Parts: sequence; structure tokens; C-alpha cells
Amino acid sequence: MLAIDKTNGGHLYRQVMDLVTSEVESGTLRPGDRLPSLRRMSAILGVSVPTVKQAYEELERQGRVRARPQSGFYVEAQRRNALVRGSGCREPVEVCCRSLVEQVYDAIHRPGVIPFGIANPSMARPAAKMLHRTMKRVMARAEERSLGYAPMLGDPGLRRQIAFRYLDLGGRVAPEDVIITNGGQEALALALQAVGRPGDVIAVESPTYSGILELIESLGMLAMEIETCPEEGVSLKALEKALDRQPVRACLFSSALNNPLGSLTSEEHRQGLVELLEARGVILIEDDVYGDLIFEDPRPKPAQFFARRSLVLTCGSFSKTAAPGYRIGWLLPGRFRDAVSKLKRSLSCSSGLLQQLTLSEFLSSGDYDRHLKALRPLLKCNAERMSARVARAFPPETRVSQPRGGAVLWLELPERIDSERLFKVAIESDISIAPGVIYAPEAGYRNFIRLSFGHPWSERLEQGIDRLGHLVNQVV
Amino acid sequence: MLAIDKTNGGHLYRQVMDLVTSEVESGTLRPGDRLPSLRRMSAILGVSVPTVKQAYEELERQGRVRARPQSGFYVEAQRRNALVRGSGCREPVEVCCRSLVEQVYDAIHRPGVIPFGIANPSMARPAAKMLHRTMKRVMARAEERSLGYAPMLGDPGLRRQIAFRYLDLGGRVAPEDVIITNGGQEALALALQAVGRPGDVIAVESPTYSGILELIESLGMLAMEIETCPEEGVSLKALEKALDRQPVRACLFSSALNNPLGSLTSEEHRQGLVELLEARGVILIEDDVYGDLIFEDPRPKPAQFFARRSLVLTCGSFSKTAAPGYRIGWLLPGRFRDAVSKLKRSLSCSSGLLQQLTLSEFLSSGDYDRHLKALRPLLKCNAERMSARVARAFPPETRVSQPRGGAVLWLELPERIDSERLFKVAIESDISIAPGVIYAPEAGYRNFIRLSFGHPWSERLEQGIDRLGHLVNQVV
Repeated sequence: MLAIDKTNGGHLYRQVMDLVTSEVESGTLRPGDRLPSLRRMSAILGVSVPTVKQAYEELERQGRVRARPQSGFYVEAQRRNALVRGSGCREPVEVCCRSLVEQVYDAIHRPGVIPFGIANPSMARPAAKMLHRTMKRVMARAEERSLGYAPMLGDPGLRRQIAFRYLDLGGRVAPEDVIITNGGQEALALALQAVGRPGDVIAVESPTYSGILELIESLGMLAMEIETCPEEGVSLKALEKALDRQPVRACLFSSALNNPLGSLTSEEHRQGLVELLEARGVILIEDDVYGDLIFEDPRPKPAQFFARRSLVLTCGSFSKTAAPGYRIGWLLPGRFRDAVSKLKRSLSCSSGLLQQLTLSEFLSSGDYDRHLKALRPLLKCNAERMSARVARAFPPETRVSQPRGGAVLWLELPERIDSERLFKVAIESDISIAPGVIYAPEAGYRNFIRLSFGHPWSERLEQGIDRLGHLVNQVV
Repeated sequence: MLAIDKTNGGHLYRQVMDLVTSEVESGTLRPGDRLPSLRRMSAILGVSVPTVKQAYEELERQGRVRARPQSGFYVEAQRRNALVRGSGCREPVEVCCRSLVEQVYDAIHRPGVIPFGIANPSMARPAAKMLHRTMKRVMARAEERSLGYAPMLGDPGLRRQIAFRYLDLGGRVAPEDVIITNGGQEALALALQAVGRPGDVIAVESPTYSGILELIESLGMLAMEIETCPEEGVSLKALEKALDRQPVRACLFSSALNNPLGSLTSEEHRQGLVELLEARGVILIEDDVYGDLIFEDPRPKPAQFFARRSLVLTCGSFSKTAAPGYRIGWLLPGRFRDAVSKLKRSLSCSSGLLQQLTLSEFLSSGDYDRHLKALRPLLKCNAERMSARVARAFPPETRVSQPRGGAVLWLELPERIDSERLFKVAIESDISIAPGVIYAPEAGYRNFIRLSFGHPWSERLEQGIDRLGHLVNQVV
């Protein structure tokens, strides 16, 4: 009964789910109300009775409705506590969370572990068949050429395909302005090194992705936390105040979808951000690796589209959407093209050719879009399933993010919980989680954890959530 | 007649070539002497007459003997001027050759160009069939797992295979001390960043690989040239003097085989080097990417084998030997394991998994060794062919290196030649070369060029040498 592939005929199924959800959210349907009968709903939406039944059962699995024998499906009371807002920004500091991050990554690769600790969205529905087929075709065609060095800045075909995608979003990017990197992490590293030096202050969202903080530490720079709202993204007011007080060299923010919050900024917000920064000559490095994994259209436009002075650098990647192990990302370098090119060549030479040729064909054939079209609703469904399960298994005070894309839930646990301790206890039960403290340069988010739903859903995962909830309750 | 595959039955063929060469070098055979008849040589070595004939014809192609009708093969006078020794060491300086390096790399990827400018030894005999077959097997077996993230420091199987190879050379390396990187260049970058900071002085051989100089520049460090002898490697006397005068943080030297000189150091030399450095607490980063491409056994031992204080870091790669486009190298970090691990994770995350799994199997199956066994004599033969052709086509004062491995010849042209100008003229004739100035931090080696013989040999390459010689003669 589990893991039904809702991408085949998922369209109609999703319609039923969405109608019920919106009626509940608007207050039309309240806890205790009876849902329209299967037959009635089938008539309302013009979908088959079995489809409605499947959707109702999924809602029941998620704990959002309950079936009463001989009667029908009834709306359940929901505990979905919204996250609390952050509290202003802080002084620039050296980052100090490295050894814990190492333990988190080590835990993921332990055999038999439930990997809630790693954000790996594409693994919810791996594109292995399509990508393997494409790669074999590339090998047969390019033969020994496919073993050779790629041009330093990337395969021209792939650079063109990436530029096309931006055009499709309404932005003009020349293929020569796409620099292929070893994954998104190298794109971030090159961007930071091109614009800053050791000692420079880099503004970051709070919370922000741990890899960004590690990078800032490795380069000897200082991280400055800026308050970030779970609904609207980084606070422009707080940012403006920070810029008044500190000589910030660059901001390193997520483009539109924050990790770990899963929050989505509005287009106006991004535009306002770029205007604020460019007016002061402050550089923006945007991490856009989750943009293609938004649950609902339209895909958010990168902040770079609003730049007038070419002070925005955009980092993208195929690691979250298609093939983490390919290590192929890219960087749109704004006005720092020369500096980035030299750094790329001297720090790691070119990136893998075979993977670039494969991805180029994967994009041009339309396979990538077909893959995303199937992956995104599945991730949305996983998010709902995990939220529902957490609501049942965790203490009632638990607050949970409502991700708009990506593959992670951000949980605020009761204050007494030390997430670092929870991480260690959980690993002993073969569950990997990511403790909140690694998402800020100083030890904030002590009672927060991040859980990934980027996996094929299974009873094993559900039991993992239950066991984790049990551990949290024990600790309390 | 060209491009006969001397790796099938190449053993006997090579025996004939080697006997003639050693007799000429020892002076037993002098210019004008007649070689033993085909029948006589066949009897001496116990090989077939056609094999002797094939070897004699190859010697003739290389201009080392000449056939006289109805008479036999006669030794030709050779112009093989040895390279001049370097001249002491210099003050530490900032590196300044970047835009020219960029032009050199751009030139390589121009369609229709003869790529003498890139050292790409494995392309002399690509292992495409073996590697493609292995990769397909890996895909079939690992399926979606092969798309996922590799562990941060590398696939355990590949790390073990690399450790085995060191064991085979007589050194003990734990698999956990092998850190997989994005090619040899990232290994060098991580090593330098782990041990040094901006402003540090790094000693380099003179001449040395341009990528090393670019890296030093990118990291804001200073390069200090140390005299390097075309026969014996870096001068320990000059190095000692330099250490007395300057606070050198680390030396970044080739392990045993210098690029561009192609010279091989003795084991005693490497041991003496490590003793000298460790006694003074100076770190050695060794670039060992050419060690497996030595023309004659035994493969040189890395300097790390002689370290007592773990102050030596060793950088290796499969880019020169098997698959440049895979971007898989490794680093033995000595006592800097923790620093290197953190840098690797934060600067580029893990390296490509599919390539690691493929190389792991390529090594364990014995295919890698079989491939090297076929590649090395072919490179040696290419070196001889190119030297011979250069001797005929270039001005008589030209001096040429006698590489002991790898894929490049280093040429000292008449003093009036400006190699940067020659590079630009050659590119207009669709020939890419590497001008000497990029192999030293300051503008030395003005009248030197580096030519790669890492290609399947062909008449087109020979004509390329002739045309290049013609251009040099014109410039003179």
C-alpha cells in the first residue's frame, strides 16, 4: 500500500488532496467535519471514485483525516505549530562547528542507518535509468574523447543548455558566463575566493546551510548572522542595520529557498535585496541549488536577474536535482568572470567531462524536465507525510517548518532538548539527524534539528520518525 | 607504415632498438659504422628477421641510422645537445604569467590544432575500451547508488587499491591516509592550503609545472625558484642556501620526474632531500603524477617513504595515466590529515563516485597495470621519434631534454628566439606549444618551449614538428 507512485495519474489524485487541504486551511472544513463522500467528491472534481479513495487514504495516513467505519472520513485536529521568528542579527564571528559537522557526515555513511541527516532530494526518485542510458550513449559516441580533459570552464554544450534554462525563466545569460564547477560547493568556494579575502565579513542567513559556514571558516573569513524569517526570508531591515554597523564584503544567501527553513522568498523581496545591496556596493553570492525543486510553479527567478551592476554571483548544481555523485555545478560570476576563471583553473583544473556530456544530453533531450516533473510532487508528498508523522510522534510543543520545496523539515523541539545530545543518542539507534547548532556560526539553534525527506518513502522511515519521537520524549 | 602497435610483440622489437642504442651510447658503434646485418642481428638476439627489419626501419625513421641500397644500415651522426644547467636560486616573488597560461590552454581546444601544448600522456594509447566496459559494469551493479554522494574522503575500495600500490612499492600507507581529490591539481591545492597561508614562501623547482605557479599565485603565496639540474633534479646545495636565507614554509617539488625537464632523481637524492627538509622542519609537498609513467623500471619511490616526521605530503592522480576527464587524484596528507579533510569537505565536498568505483575496479582487476605496461614503451618510442624529428627540423644549436618518463620534451632554442612570440606565430599555423616563460615565476626560459608527445603518433605530428622547425628557423 505504501510508496504508490503518484506521478502516474498523480495529477487527479493531487487535485483531491489539494481541494481538501485548501478547504481545511481556509476554515471551510474544521476538525470533526465529515469530508464529502467518495461518490460526491468524484462528481465534484470529475475524477474516478478509486482516485478519491486513494487520496482520502493518503490523507488518513498523514493523520489529517480519520476514517470512521460505516460513516466516512472526518477532519482531524492538526498540531502544526509555525516556527518562531529569529531575533535580530549578531556580531561577526569565527565559525566553530567543524568537528560536529564531520560526525554528521560520517553518520550518514554508516551501514544500516536511516539517513535523515543528509539532504539528498534526487534520491527520492533516482534518475538512474535515464542517466545511465544517456551516459552509455555518450560513451559510444565520444569514445576516447570522453576520457579527455574538458575545457577549463566547461563543456560548451552543457554551458549552452544551462544558459537556455535561464532564458526560459526570463533572464539573459550568455553561455560564456556559465562556469562549470565541481558541484555547488566548489561554485560557492570560487565565488567567495573571487570576491573576498581572509578577515572579510560575510553576511549569512540565520539559520543557514552548514556547508556555507564551513567554507567561510576554511577561507579565514568571518560570518555575520542576519535574522531570517521562516515565511519571508532574510530580514531586509536587519540587514540594512548590519550594513550600517559593519563593513560587510558580501552576503551569501540562498536564492529563494532557504536550507534548512524550506521557506520561499517573494520576487519583490529578492528585488528589494539586490537593490539594497547594489546601492551600497555589497556583493551578493546566491546559493540557488534548490530552485528547481520548488513544489509549486513558478520556479523562482534568481536574484541575479534583478542586478544592474553585475554584483550578484549565482551558484547552481545538479547534485540536488539529479546526480549528487556527478559533482557538476556551475557559477554565473557576474563581473568577477576573470577572477573566477583563473581560480577555477588553478585550484582544480577542469571538471569531469563524461558527466558534463551526459548532463548536456539529459537536458537537451527533455529528460531532465520530465524527471523534475515527477520528482517535485513526490517530494511534496514526502514533506506532508513526514510532517504528519512528526505531529503524531513528537512532543506537542514541537514546531515544524512548512517547506515550499527541497527535501528538509526544520524542527524546533522543546527548549530542554539539546540537539547535539539527541544526535548522539539517535545514532546509537541507527538514526542520523542533523543537529541545529551546525546551522549557525555560534551555538544557536540548540533545540532544533533538520530532517531530510529526500528518500523513497517507506514504513522503515515512518518507524524511524516514531523511534526518534520516542527518543525526544524520553530526553524530555 | 606508421603507428605500428609495438606493444604486441613489442618486447623483442624493443630489444633490438635498445641494443643498438646502448652500443651507440657506449661508443662501440660510431657514426658511419654499419649495423650488423638483419640475419646476423636476428641470430645474436634470437628474434626473427622481420622483427629486426622493423626495428632498423624505426631507427631510420628516427634519423638515427640510414639505409644505403644494397649495403645495409649505417649509424648517423646525432645532434643531441644536452640541456644547460640552471643558474642558482632567486628571491621569492609574486607569480605573473597568468594571461599567457590561459592562452596556452585556449589554444589546445581550438579545432584542428596540433596539441603539442598539453601534456596528456594517456591519450597516446587511450584506455577507453577497458574503462568504458568497467564503468558499464559498475552502473549495472551499483544502479542508483552510483549516482549518490561518495564519502567525503573517497570510496573505501579505491582508497584501499591505492594503498595496495604503495605497499607494492615498499611503503606502508593506510587506506584512511589516502584522500581522494578532484584530480592532482586539487590535491596540490589542498596540500598548500593545509600547510600555508597568504604571504608564505614556497620553494619550487626551476623550471617547474605552470599549474604549480598559478596555484601559488591564487593562494597569495610567493614562489622561490631553486636551481634544478636536468640530470639530477633540484640542487640540494642551492636549496640549503635558500633555506638559510629565507623562511621557506614548504617546498613543492615533483617527486622524481620533473615536468617539463623529464629528468629523474635518484633514490639517494630524494632521501637526502627529505632529510635536509625534515631536519629544518620544512614541509615537502611532492607532485607524483608522473611516477607511474617512468619509461624503465623500477617505478621511483615517493619521497614520503623516507620521511620520519610526517612532514611530506604526496599528490597523485589518474589524469596522466588513465583518464584525465575523470578528475580523480589523491593526497597522502602526512601529519596534516585533519586540516586536509576539513578543507576537502568545505571547498568541494566529495569527488565523483562513479569514476571512483570504476577506477577501483580498473585497479583491482589488473587492467590498470596492463594498460601502463602498454603505455610506457609507447611513450618512450614517441619521445625518441619526437627527439629525432626535432634534431632534423630545428636549428643545430637547439638543445633537447632526454626524458626518463612522462610525455614532454623541453627544448632550449637559440637565444634570439622569443618563445612567447613563437607561440603566437605557431598558433596561427594551427600548432599549439607551451612557451618556456610559464614554467618559472619570473620571466625566465624565454627561449625554451615544451612539446608534448602524448598523442598517437602520426605523420601529421611529424609534419607539425617540421613546420614548427621551419617557423623557428624563419624567426632566427
